[in-house]
Amino acid sequence: MDGVMRTVLVYSGGLDSTVLLYHLRQQGHELRGLGVDYGQRHRRELEAARGNCEDLGMECRVADLRAIQPLLAGSALTGELAVPDGHYTDESMKLTVVPNRNMIMLSVAIGWAISLKYDAVAYAAHAGDHPIYPDCRPEFVETMARAARRCDWHEVALLTPFIARTKADIVRLGAQIGVPFERTWSCYRGGEVHCGRCGTCVERREAFRLAGVADPTLYVDAQQEEAV
Amino acid sequence: MDGVMRTVLVYSGGLDSTVLLYHLRQQGHELRGLGVDYGQRHRRELEAARGNCEDLGMECRVADLRAIQPLLAGSALTGELAVPDGHYTDESMKLTVVPNRNMIMLSVAIGWAISLKYDAVAYAAHAGDHPIYPDCRPEFVETMARAARRCDWHEVALLTPFIARTKADIVRLGAQIGVPFERTWSCYRGGEVHCGRCGTCVERREAFRLAGVADPTLYVDAQQEEAV
Repeated sequence: MDGVMRTVLVYSGGLDSTVLLYHLRQQGHELRGLGVDYGQRHRRELEAARGNCEDLGMECRVADLRAIQPLLAGSALTGELAVPDGHYTDESMKLTVVPNRNMIMLSVAIGWAISLKYDAVAYAAHAGDHPIYPDCRPEFVETMARAARRCDWHEVALLTPFIARTKADIVRLGAQIGVPFERTWSCYRGGEVHCGRCGTCVERREAFRLAGVADPTLYVDAQQEEAV
Repeated sequence: MDGVMRTVLVYSGGLDSTVLLYHLRQQGHELRGLGVDYGQRHRRELEAARGNCEDLGMECRVADLRAIQPLLAGSALTGELAVPDGHYTDESMKLTVVPNRNMIMLSVAIGWAISLKYDAVAYAAHAGDHPIYPDCRPEFVETMARAARRCDWHEVALLTPFIARTKADIVRLGAQIGVPFERTWSCYRGGEVHCGRCGTCVERREAFRLAGVADPTLYVDAQQEEAV
């Protein structure tokens, strides 16, 4: 071991995981990115992921899990339901939960890390996720960290440095380390520009405002920014 | 809740999971079977799984995970390496480990169970697996059981009733409850009939012998039975 930590980053191309990417690079990790295609409407995030990795000379693979999407029905992110407008913490946002998405993503990332003999898997679960996404809660993450140490003779560490941070904290950190925010994708609707009204757009705007960082994102309804 | 347990069975079509299927049916579970296609050579097991479920009027789905197989390189079950001959507990059998296979399979099964609002996921890890397959060890299974309770607001139980049983115990139970052993598939080589010499064939033959149950399996090298 030469002291360099080798890490597979679960990388969606969104704001949180892009800040994590830059943060881990700064900490000296040797990184590979893993995007997951689960049939999400907002496939633009995968393009963002690929583009950002390419610019950094980093390998990015996309695990194509579209074939299992019919088994995970019932989410507005993949199915026939409409993506709801509203605040990220609203009850209606539970429509955007894809059953067991994070365990599935992590299990593939851990498998890849074992196959590469890498040291760790990192993902960007953060404190703002907890009220809606059960699979971002610390008690879930701790359990998966234990599973990652036990699933193979080669142990893999699970790194979630943002687990106790808010999205505003993440924006603040990203601004400090020069993350190109305009090249990250959040919107669940996956149009040409961010809609500005779905849960993740509302959360994104709010995070920039709370962090006191200028938001470079182009939103469909730019006036709404003032009204939030 | 009407008292009926609704359970997704991780079902390979092999001996252990077929005995578990019959056992859970006898216990009154309402079952659906989930096979996993990870690009294994022995794809015959999936045909066995489908056929057995069909005969019992049970839904069987196969999760097609072949697209992620390149991420999980290095196993003789999927790659270019040859399947080794020998005893199941030999060091050489580690070649047959597919990185993190069980966590991946379980995560998909748990996701399907959540989507169906089912109560449980069952899989047939047993005591004989432990020396070679880290993801069949009780400490791994316990951790995954905890993860299955925490990954969603809908809790799923993980059932592994064979975790402390040997394969001979499983054969004995199967014989008691009328499992059609001849319609289960074990051989890693996936030929027309069982090879009789790969790790899982050796283990299968040995289990019937130790259980004192007649083995209806057709092996390529039937004479070898005496020599084992």
